[in-house]
Amino acid sequence: VMNDKPLAITMGCPASIGPEIILRWFTAEKNRAPHIVVGDLSVLMRCASELDIAAPLHHWQPGESPVAGKLNIWSLSELGESLRWGKPDETTGRAMAGYIMEAVSHINSGNFSGLVTCPISKSSLNGAGYHFPGHTEMLASLCNVDSQVMMMAGKKLRVTLATIHCPLAEVPSLLNQNLLVRIIRTTHRALTADFGIDHPKIAVGGLNPHGGEDGLFGDEEQRIILPAVNAAQAEGINVCGPMPPDTVFFKAARGHFDAVVCMYHDQGLIPFKLLHFEDGVNVTLGLPIIRTSVDHGTAYDIAGQGSADPQSLSAAIELAEQMAEFRNRKKT
Amino acid sequence: VMNDKPLAITMGCPASIGPEIILRWFTAEKNRAPHIVVGDLSVLMRCASELDIAAPLHHWQPGESPVAGKLNIWSLSELGESLRWGKPDETTGRAMAGYIMEAVSHINSGNFSGLVTCPISKSSLNGAGYHFPGHTEMLASLCNVDSQVMMMAGKKLRVTLATIHCPLAEVPSLLNQNLLVRIIRTTHRALTADFGIDHPKIAVGGLNPHGGEDGLFGDEEQRIILPAVNAAQAEGINVCGPMPPDTVFFKAARGHFDAVVCMYHDQGLIPFKLLHFEDGVNVTLGLPIIRTSVDHGTAYDIAGQGSADPQSLSAAIELAEQMAEFRNRKKT
Repeated sequence: VMNDKPLAITMGCPASIGPEIILRWFTAEKNRAPHIVVGDLSVLMRCASELDIAAPLHHWQPGESPVAGKLNIWSLSELGESLRWGKPDETTGRAMAGYIMEAVSHINSGNFSGLVTCPISKSSLNGAGYHFPGHTEMLASLCNVDSQVMMMAGKKLRVTLATIHCPLAEVPSLLNQNLLVRIIRTTHRALTADFGIDHPKIAVGGLNPHGGEDGLFGDEEQRIILPAVNAAQAEGINVCGPMPPDTVFFKAARGHFDAVVCMYHDQGLIPFKLLHFEDGVNVTLGLPIIRTSVDHGTAYDIAGQGSADPQSLSAAIELAEQMAEFRNRKKT
Repeated sequence: VMNDKPLAITMGCPASIGPEIILRWFTAEKNRAPHIVVGDLSVLMRCASELDIAAPLHHWQPGESPVAGKLNIWSLSELGESLRWGKPDETTGRAMAGYIMEAVSHINSGNFSGLVTCPISKSSLNGAGYHFPGHTEMLASLCNVDSQVMMMAGKKLRVTLATIHCPLAEVPSLLNQNLLVRIIRTTHRALTADFGIDHPKIAVGGLNPHGGEDGLFGDEEQRIILPAVNAAQAEGINVCGPMPPDTVFFKAARGHFDAVVCMYHDQGLIPFKLLHFEDGVNVTLGLPIIRTSVDHGTAYDIAGQGSADPQSLSAAIELAEQMAEFRNRKKT
């Protein structure tokens, strides 16, 4: 049974490259499913006109079926005249937050199958009065969950992160067995439920060079990571590690593992971006809803100029479609 | 002017895969230059016989010209009968150390153009009475230098490491401006003198996610790395950074930089091994002599079994030949 509900695609910051990548995604993709852009019709019209992008836009309203062959837009603001590309302000910040809140609310009431997000500006989110460290934390709050896991997904490599945006010096003290078991478990569930992998194989990276070399270069492997791997194995999860960080990604990219659980941001992001610089997708695991995101920022420096690349958005939409399809199959 | 001196290739631990990769390198490479293996003729004969590798061996003596078309061996031990594959002991440890010491001594007296090393066992090195943390430190001591820089070199990526074999937790406290300026300078000199790059471009990685994002996730970039980059620029070196660690290697692999100076082992080794798992070369910079090394260990578990891969040794020999050629050109 095909999942026939559309995805919600939030436009992100109106002054960013969000509008352009949405238009370019629409014109580039053949046989695109009719999803709903939650954003600003007037901004998309202006962007299409200024950059000479021929996209038939449809002013969609909740309750309607999306129109095939058109870009369906649920318009929640009207900033097309006042907007300055690359210059976010309080007004764009409030609009941007509104797209996200309405999209999540309508996913929760069953109107959309999942969420794909274009980039937002953290500072204008905060400037508009929404005090979250970032996009993901805002979504977690809207979904009433207090923890989520960041996965970067590509065709060659998937990584999940035990710690994310903190100084490298703080990473060792942030790791503990419960945290790692939770990340392994969430990774396993997502691979099974959302990626359609029946018996996923997960590797856990070590923290130290060579995985600590038996305690010679650090003991976190023996003290924290190995016990977490053992505990997850005891739950029936096919997980191994701690693996030497400098070889595990090569093995994963060769197909030995379906995902690598990483101890810190760059352990996962360095190999991921080396393999998936242009087509990487950021997936938020542990939310009740499906959520994928582009793997780049607002790129204000090139907003409105016609050089934005929709590859990451295309990959994010494609992955969200697949995830919705797998969740749907599980139900039926 | 071609550099007509041979390289010295030390056999490494006799009980390791060293003998096999030397024989396989010799039989696989066409038009190989006649270098000198510093090791054990009887072990190489036994290995060739057991693994059925047809390699014409020549018992070379100092003072002779190497014989073309043969594998020239300077034999400093005779362990062919007593040796057990994969089982190093005090005798193999002493022999292994002897190869290194004689090779360096003869490089210093001008008989060889450089050194290529096969893997040794650190524990049997220490067991034989040579108390060094590793191969490189022993070489530095034999060359009377007190600091050296580890570079990993491949056709797509070169990285040098500011810290190497230490716990990740200690990395931030080990970084300082003088250290980084020294690494940048040594990297620049090597690219110029040994890699034949006239105006090398060097990138320096940050320590923290996104390079600290203006101090939000750590201040080492502003406090230590940026001042070091500025100081190196003031010496006329074309260096930039600190760069976000998760994008700098993609750019370097695309040709934007000739080398990336990395803050810690896995920052450099994760991307390097992803691109150069089989053909990476470990180069020791900052020694008066040329030294390259295979990028793998003794692999005792497969020693003597016929499955060892000589790719890294081939790449190490090829790179040492090129380095010797560039140094020679500079002189003439």
